[in-house]
Amino acid sequence: MMKNIRIVLINTSHPGNIGSAARAMKTMGLERLYLVNPKFFPHGQATALASNAADVLENATVVDSLDAAIQDCGLVIGTSARTRMLLWSSFSAEKAALKIKVAADQNTQVAIVFGREDSGLTNDEIKRCHCQVFIPSNPEYSSLNLSAAVQVIGYEIYKAFADHVEPVQPVGDVLATAQDIEHFYKHLERVLIEVEFLKVTRSTQIMNRLRRIFNRVSLEAKEVKILRGVLTAVGKKIK
Amino acid sequence: MMKNIRIVLINTSHPGNIGSAARAMKTMGLERLYLVNPKFFPHGQATALASNAADVLENATVVDSLDAAIQDCGLVIGTSARTRMLLWSSFSAEKAALKIKVAADQNTQVAIVFGREDSGLTNDEIKRCHCQVFIPSNPEYSSLNLSAAVQVIGYEIYKAFADHVEPVQPVGDVLATAQDIEHFYKHLERVLIEVEFLKVTRSTQIMNRLRRIFNRVSLEAKEVKILRGVLTAVGKKIK
Repeated sequence: MMKNIRIVLINTSHPGNIGSAARAMKTMGLERLYLVNPKFFPHGQATALASNAADVLENATVVDSLDAAIQDCGLVIGTSARTRMLLWSSFSAEKAALKIKVAADQNTQVAIVFGREDSGLTNDEIKRCHCQVFIPSNPEYSSLNLSAAVQVIGYEIYKAFADHVEPVQPVGDVLATAQDIEHFYKHLERVLIEVEFLKVTRSTQIMNRLRRIFNRVSLEAKEVKILRGVLTAVGKKIK
Repeated sequence: MMKNIRIVLINTSHPGNIGSAARAMKTMGLERLYLVNPKFFPHGQATALASNAADVLENATVVDSLDAAIQDCGLVIGTSARTRMLLWSSFSAEKAALKIKVAADQNTQVAIVFGREDSGLTNDEIKRCHCQVFIPSNPEYSSLNLSAAVQVIGYEIYKAFADHVEPVQPVGDVLATAQDIEHFYKHLERVLIEVEFLKVTRSTQIMNRLRRIFNRVSLEAKEVKILRGVLTAVGKKIK
């Protein structure tokens, strides 16, 4: 169901863009807006540009970190220019929309995360995302306005819900939340340091490689339990 | 070819919308803009919102009637809300984009006509169009901003021309062979027995759950090396 989908805007500079994004969302049936540290909100310009989507703004959730916006989400998708997708798995808007529909229909909370107008998402924010979505566009000028990007991705989601009556994938378990997965990574890192696979000071690169594996797989809640069970067993044994 | 396609904006009230439309066009590889009696043009706000698509504005053709904007066109498509499509043949943005591509590739001049921000196209203007295009959207609120509508229709046209040349896979390594992966599973099982997470006699079910995770992810050769490195470190530590 579409109500399991939220749009997360990080650190938006121009309040007008928040309003335009709200309008874009509502035209595509999306109503849940999270704002991470917006520069100005609420703001008259946001309300003006939201037009008849002022209710989306009124019901928006303002938080002070990306983690707070996604902690209950089982699928977190970052938006990025094509050039940023080197390390992480990326899907076109159309493919991502199918993935989003499947997850949302299984009652997984889904977040689609949009970065700053000028600089997008930081590497740290990208790491929090399970995969990336990109909008196919002119390679010589691919810089969509923030609300235009929300519009296109919302449009593909709307189409995915409107078009696809047929079941897209076998039903699996409910996906793990972003918070479960972050706890797993913390636990994994701790154990890898204990077994001296990682040095405390130089763990980032290897941890990113490991994140890349597990982010790609969309872990289910039960699977995270099994993996943490393994880590606990290792921890006990070496004590 | 995309250069046979023009975007026609009729009687636009807000110069910012002209700028945003130009930006939307350029991101989707469209460069020919016709303005029929714009309220204000040129205008600083149009230029500001065009961002790096100022060239689209500079090359725009300003005319004083719809007829002047479309006279050499073999295919003229009006944009309309769904409710307006009663009388005329209508296509969704996706279907219209295919029609547009076929025509433009045959060197037919194609115009896509957008009406006023508040009231769209007049009946007289709709009559000038050979067919209508609509953007699937929330039936309870289907009012896309003008430049957002240009963005979505441009996006579908871009996709029609790009014909699914999506580099979906991130630049990754070569995938691990089935043999590599079987060796990894054997190694994993051995270590899980050593740390007493698994009992020798009853390991199948859990091992299948773990296989399900790693099979799903299409492990790369280097990733298997890292994972086996972890297992080796654990093995050493517990000895």
